[in-house]
Order: sequence, then structure tokens, then C-alpha cells
Amino acid sequence: MNGKLKIFCGSSNPNLANSICEHLGVQPGKINIHRFSNDNIKVKIEENVRNDDVFVIQTAAPPVNDHLMELLIIIDALRYASAGRITAVTPYYFYSRSDKKDEPRISITARLVSDLLQTAGANRILAMKLHAPQLMGFPRIPIDQLMANGLLLDYFKECIDLDNTVIVAPDVGSAKGSKCFARALNLPMVIIDKERLGDQEEVSAGAVIGDASGKDVLITDDEILTGKSILQAIRILRKIGTGKIYVSCTHGFFSNNALDKFCEYPIEVLVTTDTLPCVARPQKLPLVVLSVADLFAKAIVAIHEGESVGDLFPADVRI
Amino acid sequence: MNGKLKIFCGSSNPNLANSICEHLGVQPGKINIHRFSNDNIKVKIEENVRNDDVFVIQTAAPPVNDHLMELLIIIDALRYASAGRITAVTPYYFYSRSDKKDEPRISITARLVSDLLQTAGANRILAMKLHAPQLMGFPRIPIDQLMANGLLLDYFKECIDLDNTVIVAPDVGSAKGSKCFARALNLPMVIIDKERLGDQEEVSAGAVIGDASGKDVLITDDEILTGKSILQAIRILRKIGTGKIYVSCTHGFFSNNALDKFCEYPIEVLVTTDTLPCVARPQKLPLVVLSVADLFAKAIVAIHEGESVGDLFPADVRI
Amino acid sequence: MNGKLKIFCGSSNPNLANSICEHLGVQPGKINIHRFSNDNIKVKIEENVRNDDVFVIQTAAPPVNDHLMELLIIIDALRYASAGRITAVTPYYFYSRSDKKDEPRISITARLVSDLLQTAGANRILAMKLHAPQLMGFPRIPIDQLMANGLLLDYFKECIDLDNTVIVAPDVGSAKGSKCFARALNLPMVIIDKERLGDQEEVSAGAVIGDASGKDVLITDDEILTGKSILQAIRILRKIGTGKIYVSCTHGFFSNNALDKFCEYPIEVLVTTDTLPCVARPQKLPLVVLSVADLFAKAIVAIHEGESVGDLFPADVRI
Amino acid sequence: MNGKLKIFCGSSNPNLANSICEHLGVQPGKINIHRFSNDNIKVKIEENVRNDDVFVIQTAAPPVNDHLMELLIIIDALRYASAGRITAVTPYYFYSRSDKKDEPRISITARLVSDLLQTAGANRILAMKLHAPQLMGFPRIPIDQLMANGLLLDYFKECIDLDNTVIVAPDVGSAKGSKCFARALNLPMVIIDKERLGDQEEVSAGAVIGDASGKDVLITDDEILTGKSILQAIRILRKIGTGKIYVSCTHGFFSNNALDKFCEYPIEVLVTTDTLPCVARPQKLPLVVLSVADLFAKAIVAIHEGESVGDLFPADVRI
Amino acid sequence: MNGKLKIFCGSSNPNLANSICEHLGVQPGKINIHRFSNDNIKVKIEENVRNDDVFVIQTAAPPVNDHLMELLIIIDALRYASAGRITAVTPYYFYSRSDKKDEPRISITARLVSDLLQTAGANRILAMKLHAPQLMGFPRIPIDQLMANGLLLDYFKECIDLDNTVIVAPDVGSAKGSKCFARALNLPMVIIDKERLGDQEEVSAGAVIGDASGKDVLITDDEILTGKSILQAIRILRKIGTGKIYVSCTHGFFSNNALDKFCEYPIEVLVTTDTLPCVARPQKLPLVVLSVADLFAKAIVAIHEGESVGDLFPADVRI
Amino acid sequence: MNGKLKIFCGSSNPNLANSICEHLGVQPGKINIHRFSNDNIKVKIEENVRNDDVFVIQTAAPPVNDHLMELLIIIDALRYASAGRITAVTPYYFYSRSDKKDEPRISITARLVSDLLQTAGANRILAMKLHAPQLMGFPRIPIDQLMANGLLLDYFKECIDLDNTVIVAPDVGSAKGSKCFARALNLPMVIIDKERLGDQEEVSAGAVIGDASGKDVLITDDEILTGKSILQAIRILRKIGTGKIYVSCTHGFFSNNALDKFCEYPIEVLVTTDTLPCVARPQKLPLVVLSVADLFAKAIVAIHEGESVGDLFPADVRI
Repeated sequence: MNGKLKIFCGSSNPNLANSICEHLGVQPGKINIHRFSNDNIKVKIEENVRNDDVFVIQTAAPPVNDHLMELLIIIDALRYASAGRITAVTPYYFYSRSDKKDEPRISITARLVSDLLQTAGANRILAMKLHAPQLMGFPRIPIDQLMANGLLLDYFKECIDLDNTVIVAPDVGSAKGSKCFARALNLPMVIIDKERLGDQEEVSAGAVIGDASGKDVLITDDEILTGKSILQAIRILRKIGTGKIYVSCTHGFFSNNALDKFCEYPIEVLVTTDTLPCVARPQKLPLVVLSVADLFAKAIVAIHEGESVGDLFPADVRI
Repeated sequence: MNGKLKIFCGSSNPNLANSICEHLGVQPGKINIHRFSNDNIKVKIEENVRNDDVFVIQTAAPPVNDHLMELLIIIDALRYASAGRITAVTPYYFYSRSDKKDEPRISITARLVSDLLQTAGANRILAMKLHAPQLMGFPRIPIDQLMANGLLLDYFKECIDLDNTVIVAPDVGSAKGSKCFARALNLPMVIIDKERLGDQEEVSAGAVIGDASGKDVLITDDEILTGKSILQAIRILRKIGTGKIYVSCTHGFFSNNALDKFCEYPIEVLVTTDTLPCVARPQKLPLVVLSVADLFAKAIVAIHEGESVGDLFPADVRI
Repeated sequence: MNGKLKIFCGSSNPNLANSICEHLGVQPGKINIHRFSNDNIKVKIEENVRNDDVFVIQTAAPPVNDHLMELLIIIDALRYASAGRITAVTPYYFYSRSDKKDEPRISITARLVSDLLQTAGANRILAMKLHAPQLMGFPRIPIDQLMANGLLLDYFKECIDLDNTVIVAPDVGSAKGSKCFARALNLPMVIIDKERLGDQEEVSAGAVIGDASGKDVLITDDEILTGKSILQAIRILRKIGTGKIYVSCTHGFFSNNALDKFCEYPIEVLVTTDTLPCVARPQKLPLVVLSVADLFAKAIVAIHEGESVGDLFPADVRI
Repeated sequence: MNGKLKIFCGSSNPNLANSICEHLGVQPGKINIHRFSNDNIKVKIEENVRNDDVFVIQTAAPPVNDHLMELLIIIDALRYASAGRITAVTPYYFYSRSDKKDEPRISITARLVSDLLQTAGANRILAMKLHAPQLMGFPRIPIDQLMANGLLLDYFKECIDLDNTVIVAPDVGSAKGSKCFARALNLPMVIIDKERLGDQEEVSAGAVIGDASGKDVLITDDEILTGKSILQAIRILRKIGTGKIYVSCTHGFFSNNALDKFCEYPIEVLVTTDTLPCVARPQKLPLVVLSVADLFAKAIVAIHEGESVGDLFPADVRI
Repeated sequence: MNGKLKIFCGSSNPNLANSICEHLGVQPGKINIHRFSNDNIKVKIEENVRNDDVFVIQTAAPPVNDHLMELLIIIDALRYASAGRITAVTPYYFYSRSDKKDEPRISITARLVSDLLQTAGANRILAMKLHAPQLMGFPRIPIDQLMANGLLLDYFKECIDLDNTVIVAPDVGSAKGSKCFARALNLPMVIIDKERLGDQEEVSAGAVIGDASGKDVLITDDEILTGKSILQAIRILRKIGTGKIYVSCTHGFFSNNALDKFCEYPIEVLVTTDTLPCVARPQKLPLVVLSVADLFAKAIVAIHEGESVGDLFPADVRI
Repeated sequence: MNGKLKIFCGSSNPNLANSICEHLGVQPGKINIHRFSNDNIKVKIEENVRNDDVFVIQTAAPPVNDHLMELLIIIDALRYASAGRITAVTPYYFYSRSDKKDEPRISITARLVSDLLQTAGANRILAMKLHAPQLMGFPRIPIDQLMANGLLLDYFKECIDLDNTVIVAPDVGSAKGSKCFARALNLPMVIIDKERLGDQEEVSAGAVIGDASGKDVLITDDEILTGKSILQAIRILRKIGTGKIYVSCTHGFFSNNALDKFCEYPIEVLVTTDTLPCVARPQKLPLVVLSVADLFAKAIVAIHEGESVGDLFPADVRI
């Protein structure tokens, strides 16, 4: 792309946005985001962007709908301001979990979001770890998906002794995602089948698929919202008697005081990334936040210069 | 339209929505609007809508972006649920004031909103008193605009003695809108030219265009947000010595304790409508809220049955 | 929908198509499909279809691309012939497995197919058991997904004694799909982790996740192509010593003499449906083919009459 | 934009088009516009334009529909000839006044025109002084609006002594437009309320809003068609006794011998621009035509080189 | 189509339009077409059309571009007025001859026209005898093509003794069209190869392909503009010595006093239709104008009631 | 176009594709085309193509639908891989003969194909000799049409003595196409009117339009499928007694052993091009295959560098 590389930051995750700009060695584009007394957002791009190659960074942190509308309005303003190409950079994609119609008459909102982005004027999307790989089929515009698995795996390989460890998927639905960890670390898998638990979380036959007793466990999931599912997995695993407990996720949303609840369990480490802004962290929780800023910066450079984004990842961490 | 008439209500203005349903003699459609712990909205249409003629009522009340996304998601769910026709009913249209580009590199968000509605799947729009009549050119789908002027004028004709009254436009920009009142009531106009005021609001030559001294004044505007503009007009008019003060607007947003500020002035009556939900009202303010529910109900019936909406209004209150 | 219900059949699965027509009590629409000497397909609709509610039945049987182009051309002819509404009925959806981008620079062809169908003029899609539920987000037009799980489960409940049985997912990727069976039959699950097998298919630790030894096994998958994955699962399960073997799938493609290979193992029953046309069946294989014709006929009636398709299924067999 | 800058001129205003080319120092692109005996227009682009940055100049002079179709056909020919980017340059925008729906069942033709331009293949629009600023929301492609106010104001500041002058808006609808003049010249405003005039143009109370008696008057409007509105304003102002009369407009259409009628009044000067081609001018009329060619040339250069067009104007003449 | 059948007439061919209405037994829809002093067209639909099945009749008579814009504006007004379905009825299609790119960088304007019609909001097109059958592939909306050949052939069969007649195509390009006549009348063909004529129209070898000497000749063409081509054919045929001369065409445009020129030759009869309005006719010319009103009325009824339009014609007059 | 020129070859005509690459001096782009066991095609682009100027070569050889889907999937993969511009190069265009609706309710599939190409993501088309020149109006994207007439004419001018030759169109429909040959070689034309033949191919009056007896004949057509039409022409010409027989066509499809049938006649030479891959050739047939590789290579360079493609051809061989 011939135009100048420019980064504009929405207000959802300023730390990550600034960090990406630092890695790129550029100043964030001048932008003024204002809220009128009627709760309408006004965006003014404060510098010329004609023909430029513009990236807009906005993550699906709360208030989610404000941030989404802000993103759409920024893109609309850039388009009418004749930006050359506009890439929506969404570390945590908007409405990523609303990706299927498992009940009648609901919206596949992740698809709607990709349509709204195109309507506003986005020419590309750059996201991290979508809730399902099929989401890449939702937009008609090119979309690049980054994966944090490499970062997370490197951390575990370097910092943790995983000799006697099994990978645990906290439910059947996340088995496929956890498989990637198991493959890369060459470890066996265990899957929690929550529906086979009794009312009191008695561990009946088939509730823990595979053999975890006496092993250290690394529980992996794509994202942690309330943590309910992982916390339940921890309780079950402790009942059958496991060793050390490690937890890993790409998107650490941590709503409803999730982190406080994690403090109640003897977790060795909880590893996540900064795709979402930091929430208040309990001091006693061994939380490790790896930054994806470098990864996004590299991908932005690749997109800008027409290099392959896929080549940034070894094949084994791609899904 | 052959399909069954159905009304679905967003969460922005339940009183108006229910009142419209009552006028129509129908139950609101069953809908479940839920918010996930990651701040995402989930909408489930709880009844079959295939081939139905569906109207979705949502007004641009705060939190505006939540209500807008909610509207888009409802429409998307209805479309995939095979609704026959979907009309977005927006008593106060979203981002109606963002209708022009008076600075470089801003978004004409009212146009963006109409594009987003179409992308989500709306087939028609029904709105009340847009910020400029040109907004009807923004959507590619048919849009019907209702006017509350008939309601407001009827009130003044019946309840107020306007013998010695002038119509006041609180600034030059609203002169055209106030003209409609002056024409219908056959009264002269006065326009406040705020830019000709001194720093201390001294009334220099030309600040009040036209002759208001000694007259009763009826200040009209399309909408009142903070009320700043009208309150300033009142102060100026009082300096030049006027009689009774009446205030009228279609959309009473009343942000930032606007109503409390109005209490500080000797206003005879402040008349508005219920296109926006009620904010807390100071007891001592003579506030009159006229309901537009009947008007919307009639328009919905007309649209459903293929009758003219324009015929609901006499020609003189159309703009 | 007011138009007359009409069914047109492509040449991919005449038995199923005719059976659907019989269930509906309608004659298939008159259509002439011809191949020119330059290998181009010519379609002529031989009866008036103006304003009719037309369903075109075509499944992704080989030669797949001929059948897909035939479907697109039929739809195009119907559209220009002024059909009122066109529903593409694809029992086995075209390119359903090409639903994600797990390598750089490949096509998400299932998305492309849904775009091609819309371009040709389809207004709706009716399919059975897509490869991933997210595929329902690919088309911009409404899509109904039928599930054969109810049929398959009924068969097993009525004909097989499942007292000592576990549900087996032949690999981690199909765990989520098999979970639906396990839930409906209230049976525990076992998952084969093929990557943990040695070169000689030695069953090392972790290759069989969960406990299957001594149990009867019901191996379930969405579709069987070459059967390689399920046959490997059978070999492994026999090594660890299991009881009776049942196999079930929705889409029985059976390419490369798959059925002959199944004859080499002591399978009690192999249950599938007729979404794909029959291939030659080895006499000695206990193959049971359940017909989905009734299900499709009911869905077509529901769509035509504006009734809910989701209501045709109990909630527990929906995914 | 990398492509070569090229200018193609329609047949509506050759003088302005050539003047713009001269300012740019380029030859007009070779084009052949021919009319067949069946009244169809044929356009042939006589030079290669692949990848070029092409601007097509056409103004809404009569015969308006011929010129509009000519513009659409030129754009269509350029698009299929693989032009890199096509900007429709419309000094007087087509159907600019048809921008709202003030009666039922009429067309907002200014919106239709912007859709037609996009359909033909225009990628951008460059226009001067639209009838309402909201028109910039009609096209989905970027549109730049130039203003002649700077030119007109400079003329009055330099050539006319405005010490005792008021700005007159000839009707309420143009008050907002005239306000820009009043602001820039720091003069008070007067507004003619034509509806308060008697049948014989008696000047009843309220017909002249504001104080003009004994003052010089500068009557401003966006455009003059028949001049009826301004000529009426002049008659009224003379009745109440004013001084010198100046008239200013951006678009001097002057239909129906408008200029002859202006000769009947003692006007000091009538200032306009050359957005429309010259009509025959009565010798005795003090008509001043300022050229917008330089302004268009600068805007074209800015667009071509990716510079801001907004920066060409000081903020106070922007609307 | 459920909506009420309504016919709106543009101003291009009132006689034909009224005649069609008479055949249909309906009053033309109330419409007001006005021209502003700035040469802009204003259209007002004067009756409610919501959900109606509307046909707009406009033919490509001069002034062609005015009539085309008028048609587009009527359609736009109808669409925003919520017409149920809009069919553009164009007896002589706009820019029908601009259907190919036989020189570089020209516009295929017939394709542009079909795009403009869709942009304005047309849902269908009904035309007569397009310049090439491929034009039916230009619009994305359904298009029905009527043929006048049946009418013309009936005339010749009933009124003329064709025993010793050959069909003459006035140039190679119209051979295919004349073939239809030859086939239906079972007569041999002769083709004039104009390029083989000398400067003085000497009839060199190969100029007349086939044998016409001593025969009566029926010269057929789709349309006659200036008549140049047919008049030349007549001169050549007379040089080689032929009998009676009959001329036939569907579209009688007759520009540039074409009819006067025909008077100079001993033509038995010149047969055409009323797809274009009557031009002044020389008394001495044996001109026969057959009306297509009945044909259009029948086609409109068929479209409205969902009957086949193709069935209106026997197969042998279809191309 | 700034991007790098890259050529990707489908599997339809590897010889021509490689030959084009050789003329261009580039290596074909790395691509892997694979067929799954369910008959689905998988395409993987094996090199980075971001921002590149990509041409995909695929001709409509059998199996036609496989090759068309392959082309669409390649384009889709390239688009999502962020190719800068994608040109579909189709020496023999897909479904080129399905270009009109000469029967009710058939598909104009050539139009559908152009829509499918655009949907997949093609930005341009480069084809050779379409079945009708109007096909260039089907795509909304620019299309360049190459002609082989120059090549064919050069061959005949240089290698054959045409002194006593007539050009023969094998039926009336191809008269216009053969006219181009006649014009360029300055030869008279003869047209076979097949419908005037008796059942036993007796040559009744009017079956051969024009004078061929005793002349050498050059029979030209756009394409030869089964050869039925040309072979019949040869039989007729021999009955009336002609000299040498030459045959020429652009697209030599030669289905159903067409070439074997040509061996049965005393043909001097049968000249065609390599737009379609070679079929088995009978040794005794004097077949000459001229390569269009150089022409395509030149056109690709012109498109890439923004030069005129039309300039590659003298005006007389353009249609």
C-alpha cells in the first residue's frame, strides 16, 4: 500500500493502543472523540488522512456498544475524509461469541458486526483469536486472525515444568481449542463433561473424560468472562486429586469480580494477554499478563508492506 | 401488506411503546433482551414472525448506543427469522443532529445510521420530526416522517390566548422551523441572533431581529437538550421587556438537569411530547407532555394497510 | 407466502427429491436439463412460475461442481422467469467442510457458495446438518438448518439396547457433535485423540480419552467420506477391548469404496440417512438408511405457510 | 493518487472548464461527444485513461437532463476504459434544490442524482455550495463542497463601503445562509417574511423582521433563478426607505430574462460567479462575475495530491 | 401480485399510453410533471400507490434524455411512495443501439440505462424488440421482451400478395433479423452488402448477395431512423431491376425528415408500429401504422396476474 | 498498477497458460489444486500475493463446470489473500453461447457467469472473441476482448492464394462475423440458409445466398463444436460445385470426434487457435493451430502497465 501508515485509537484500550504505536515507532493519529449532551458521540479526525493506510484500534471492552459505535463512526469519518484504506483492528472482536443460531430467532451478531464494519467503510479487519475459526467467513473483506497461542506456549515452556501435566478442556465445547495446546506441548488431554456432574457437583462416571488424577493440570480456554466454567473445572479436578493448577486464556475479560473468585483457589499461575484492558487485580493472585502489542505491530507492518501475516506464526499455533 | 401486524418494543421508551400498542389494540410481541456478562446484548424473538409485518419501536434515548445496537440486533434477528417486512420506528431518530459536515473529517452519522439500519435488514423507517427535512434523503428505503406540530399547535390554540404574541426562534438556524408555527398561528416572528450578543449578554443592535418588546413570546424549537439556547433567549427577551413566556418543542431530551434550570424563569408553560422517556420533573415547572402515541398508532395502521401517511396531516403542519 | 408451492429437482438425488414430492403430495415441477456438446448445461423451466413459491432440491453429490452449477443455473432461470420466492434446498450443503481458513491463502468456499447462491437469485436456503453451526452466519438470506439427530436417536432408542454403551467421538474435532448424542441418550463419552497414536497405531497413553474398555460403543460423526477416521477408531477400540460396535452418521458420502472397508469389521449396524444418493452397498454390511424426506417435506410446508421450522425439533437435538 | 491527472469537460460550461484547465496548466482530455439522429448521445474518450486520476467537469446548466446524461455516459465510458479514479466535478450540482420531501410522493432527486453518479462509476464528487449542507450526506462516496463566500466577501470588503449596511435574507428559508455573510462582515441581519405581505405587497407588521430603514442593504442568496424573490425584497425595502442596494449570489442561473428585470431597479452591483455559463447580459446592469476556476483548480490539485480541501477555506466561510 | 394494477404515463408517447390504458380499461394514474425555471423536472404522484403494482410507460422518443430522466424520477418517486412493484414499460428502449463496444473507450449505454433503472427502483422492465437479444442479459431484474413481428407478418399475409417476393436485409448486420421474416413467410432472402458498392453506388459483384432481380422485395429492419440504409437498398434494388417494393420496421423513428425522403421512391407500402409517437406524415406516402397497444395491454395483464408473457407469442415470431 | 505482475494457471489449458508465462518471462504463480474425496476442490495459493496484480488463466474446456468452480475458488482465495487486483483471463469464455433468451424461462448463463466472477472477487476480465459483442455489457467490471482475426487473416494472406475465393458464412447467424473476414480480405460473401435445404439436403432456391459456384471457398465461423453446421455447408457447396475448401475458426472445441468427421472431406486447411486445449488430431487432417499466447501476453502487459489494449489491434479486425 502506497499511502502513509497511520494509527487511530478508539477509547477502549488506550494502553494496548499506545503500546502498539510505540512498537511501530509512530505517534497515534490526532483524533477528537466527544460526547454531546444527548449522549451522541462525535468524532473529529484532526489531521489529513487522504490516501493514507489507516488502522483503527478498538477492542470489545465495556461499554461494548459505545465502543462499537465509536469504531463505526471513526471509520465513517475516515472514509468520507478519503482515507486510502481502513483496517479495523479489534484485538477482542465485537460479539465474537454470538456466532451461531443455537436457538430459533436469535441474531448471529458476529456476522452483523462484520456487515456493519463494511457498511461504515472498513476495507480490512485484523483480530485476535476469534471464538470460532468459521468467523473468518463472515466478512466479505479480508480478515487476518492473530493467535496468542505462541506467546502463551512460550511462557509455559520457559517458566513452568510440565513433566507430569495434562491439558484440561473445561468443557466439551473447548476440547478442540485445548487440543492445540496439547499438540504443541505433546501432552495428553482431559475433558470435563459438565453435564455429567450431579447437582452438588459430585463427580459421577464420565464427568472427567480422560485421566487427570495425580497429575498437574493446565486448564486452557479462549476467554474467561465470569470464570464460572473454569472454576467449576478446578473444583472437580481437586475432588479427584490433582497436582498443581495452571490456567491460561487469550482474552481475559474477567467480569463480575472473576479475579476475586480465582483467589479462592490454589492456582499456581493465571496467564492471559492484554487484548482487553486491565481490570483491578487482587494482589494475591499470581496473574501474568503477556502483551500482544508486538504481535499486532508486526501484523500491521506486514499488512502495510504487503507481506504475509500467516508467516508470523509457526504452523502449529495457527488454530 | 398481507402479513400480520406485530409490534416489538426495544427498551428505550417502554411507556410510549406500550401506549402505541394500546392504541393499536395489540399485545407487544414477545421478545427477550438480555445482557451477557461480557456486556454483549442478546435478543431472542419469542414468537413466530414469518411473513409478518413487523414494527420495532426504539427511540434515541440514553444510553443511545446501547439502544441503537439493540435496535440493529432486533432487526437482524427478525430478518433471519423471516419476518415479511420490518419497519424501524424511531420517535426520536438516532444521531439526527449529525446531519452535515460543518467541519472537515467528521462523520455525517445520521446517514451512517440509516445505512446501518438497512444493513441490519430494515425495510422502512418511521420517525418524527427529523433535524432537517433533507434527512429523508439519507435512507434508500422508504421513510415516513411524522410531525408533532399539529398536536402542539392545537394545544396553544385551545389553551393559550395568543392575541399579543410573537413567535421567537432562539437562533437563526431555527428560524425556518419556527416559521411553521408563525404561519399556522398567523403571528409575526422574531429571531435571536446570538452572535450579536456581547460577552455579558448585552443586547446590542441586531441581536434581536424583529420586534418583541411588550409582546408575549412563544419560543419554539425542534428539540431541547440542555436548554442553553432557549434559556439565553429568555434572558435576552426579558431584558428588552416582554410579556408572558411560552416554550414549545417536539423532542424534550432535557439533559444536564435542563428542567431544573427552566424553573429559574417565569415560564407560563413548557410544552413537549413523549418521543423521549420522562426524566424527573421538578414539581414547580408547568410542564405539559403531549403524547404522540395516537399519531404513531395511526401511521402504523396506515403503513400496514397501504394507506397514505401524508394524509394524516393537514398541509400546513407538514414541515 | 401467497404464491403456489412448487418443487423443482436437480439431477443429484432423484430418489430423495421424488420422495419429498410424494410426502408433499405434489408433482415435481417440469424442468429440462440438457448438456450441450461443449459441456455447457442448459436448463429450461417448462412451466409458468411467476410469483410462485419455488423450492429447488439439489444435494452436493458428485459430480459436485456440475450439480452446483446446475443449481445456480436453475435458480437464475427461475429468477428471470419471475418466480416469487426461491429456496435452495441442499440436503448435503455444497462445500460445507471448507468453512475456515486453517492455512494461509485458501478459500472459505462454503462462504463463497452462499454468495454464489444469492448472486444467482436464491432468497432462502434449507440445509441439513452443516459442518459447523457458524455456517448459518455465511448467507445474508435466511437459512434453516434441519437436523437428522432426532431420526438417528429414535432408531437407536427403539432398536438397540444401549445399557452398557459409551458414545465415541472419533477425534477431538467431533467431540462437540457427539456430545449431543451423549446428552440425548444420557451416556458417557469417549474421545479418540488420533495424534497420540504411534505409527503402528499403538494405543499409547492419552490416545483414548475416557473409559471404553468392556463397553459397547456407538461411534458418531456428522459425515463419513472415506471412513478412514472411524475405521481407525474401530481398530483402536478393539485393541483396548470393547463390546458391540454401532456407527452413526448424518451424511453418508462413502467415497473410495468406504462401504467395502466397513465390511472388514464386525459392526452391528451402520446407520445413516439419504441426504446423499445411494452408492452400491455390499450385501453383508448391516447398513440402515433412514429417510429425511419427511423432515424436508415438513420444513418446506412450514416455510411455505410461514410456520416455525425450529418447532419441528425438540430442543435437545437442535445442534 | 498515483495516476496521471486528467480533466475531461462536458459541454455545459466550456468557458469555466477551459479556465480550470488553464489554471491547472493541463490540456483538456480528448473527448468526442456526438448526438445520433435518434437523439442519443455518444461519447468517445479519445485517449488512454487507464489508471489515471480523472476529473469530469459538468455543471447543471440547461438543457439540464442532456448534461446530466452526458455526464453519466462520460463516467461510464471512463470506468469501462479502466480509469483509476473518477471525480464528478459539478460546480452547480444537478437537482440540488430537490433535496427534501415537502409534499407526499415526490422524489428527492438530489439523492437520486448522487445514486446515479455512483451507479455510472463516479468515485468522488466535487461541488460548489449545495442547496443544503445535508446534501453531503446523500452520496456514499466522498464529496467535497467548495464555497464561493470567500470570493464574494473579498469583493465586498475591497470594493464596497459597507459602513451603514445590513445583510438582508430575502426570505426566512435563506436566513441561515445569509447569516454567514453577516457573521463574516460583522453586520446585523434583516429577514423578509414574504408570507406577511398583503396582496399588493403592502408592508404589514412583521413582513420585515429587523431594522433596515435608512440603511444600505446587501441582499444575499445562494442562487438566483427568476430573481422573483429578490426582486420582491427590493420592492419592499424601497417602500420602507433604504439606501444603496447590493445583491450577491453564488449561482447565477438567471432564467426567464431575470437579468432584464433586475435592470428595472437601482441596484449598485449584482455580484455572482461563473458556476453557470453566461447568459446574455443587459449592458446597463452592473453585473460582476467572479470566477471560481482558481478555486476548483486548487481543489482538484488538493484531491489529486491527497491534501486537505477544507484547508483551502478559512473556517468562517465554510457554510 | 396482490397490489392494485396502476398505470402511470410519462410524457413521451401519450397516444400509445392512453391507448394501452383503454385496452386495460383503467384510468391513467394521476401524476403531475412540471418543469422548474432551472430546467429541473418535478414529478408528483397525485394518488396513493402503497403496495400497488405500478407500470410506468415511457418510450425513447426525443427529447430522449428528458424522457429518460423523467422516467427515472417517476420511478424514484413511486419507490419512496412505497409502491409494491414498479415495472418500467419502454416500447422503444432507451439507448438500445448502444449495446456493444465496437470502438475503444465508449460506453455500452444500454447497459448503463438498465443499471440506472434499477438504481431508481424499477423491479421489472417490459420492452419491445431490443436492438439485440443479448440486451435481455443487461438488467439484473426480470425483463420481458415483446415482438411486433406477429403484427407485421399478419399484415403482410393478409394484405399483400407475396408470391414472387424475396425478403431483403438492407445490410449484413440485419440479416439475422430479416431471417425471421423469411422463415415465417417461407421466402428466400437477399442481403445487401453495402461495403461492396462503389462510390457512385455502382452495383459491383457481391454487393447484392442472393437473387432479387425481377422479384418483388420486402425490405425489413428493426428500426428506421434517417432511413439512409433502406433508401440505399431501394436504389440498388431498382438498378438490378426488381418489382414492387414493400418496407417494414418495428420502430419508426423517422428522424431528419426521413418520411419525406421515402416519398421520392415508388414504395407500395411502409409498415411500422406506434412504439414511437407520430411524426408529421407526408400525405402521399402509403404509411401504415399498426398499434402495439393491445400487445402491451395483454403483457401487462399477464405480468400483473402472474401468467406467462412468452405464451402471448407463437414460437416462430419470438426473435 | 503498482503491484507485482503474477500469473496463476487453472488446470484447463496448461499448454497455453505456460506459453503465456513464457512470453511474459515470468514463472507461473505457485498454486496447489487438490480434489478431496468428496469431490470438492481445494485451492491453496502457495505464495504471498498481497497487493499484487494477479491474472488467473482458465478456459472453458471440459469438464467446464469443474473449471469454472476452480476459477471462482482461485479468485476467492486470492481476494481473501489480499491480492491487489484480480483479472480473470478466459481465452474461451464460460457459457459464452448462452447469451440470450430465445425461449421462455431459460437462463442467460453468460450473464450469470459474469456475476459469479464479480461475486468471487474478479476486478477485470480478459477474454477472446465472445459469442456476441453485446456480452461486453454483461459484467459491471471492465472487460477486454481480444480478437484472433488478425492472426487468422495473416495466415490466409501469407499462405493461401485467395484470388478466386468467396467467404462463406455457414448460416445466417454467422453472416455478421464472416463479414469481418470478407471486409479485411476484400472478398465477396456467400451465406448458407440452412432452413431452405430439403430433407435430403437438396439445394433448393435460396439455400445458398450469393454466388459460390466455381469459386474457392473460405468458410469462417467463431467456433467449431461438433462441426455439424460447417460440414453441412461443405456438402452443399460441393453439390453446387466449388473449388478449394478452406475452414477457419477462433475457438476449436471439436467435440464428438468432430475432427474425424472433417477428415472425410477434401479440405485444404482447417485453421484454428489454441484458446482450447488440443484434442487428439487425426494425422491426415491438415490442421493448423495458431497460438494466441503472444496476444494474451501483450494484453496482460498492457493491462498491467496501463496501456491501451485496443491499440494492439488494427481497427479492421476489431469485431
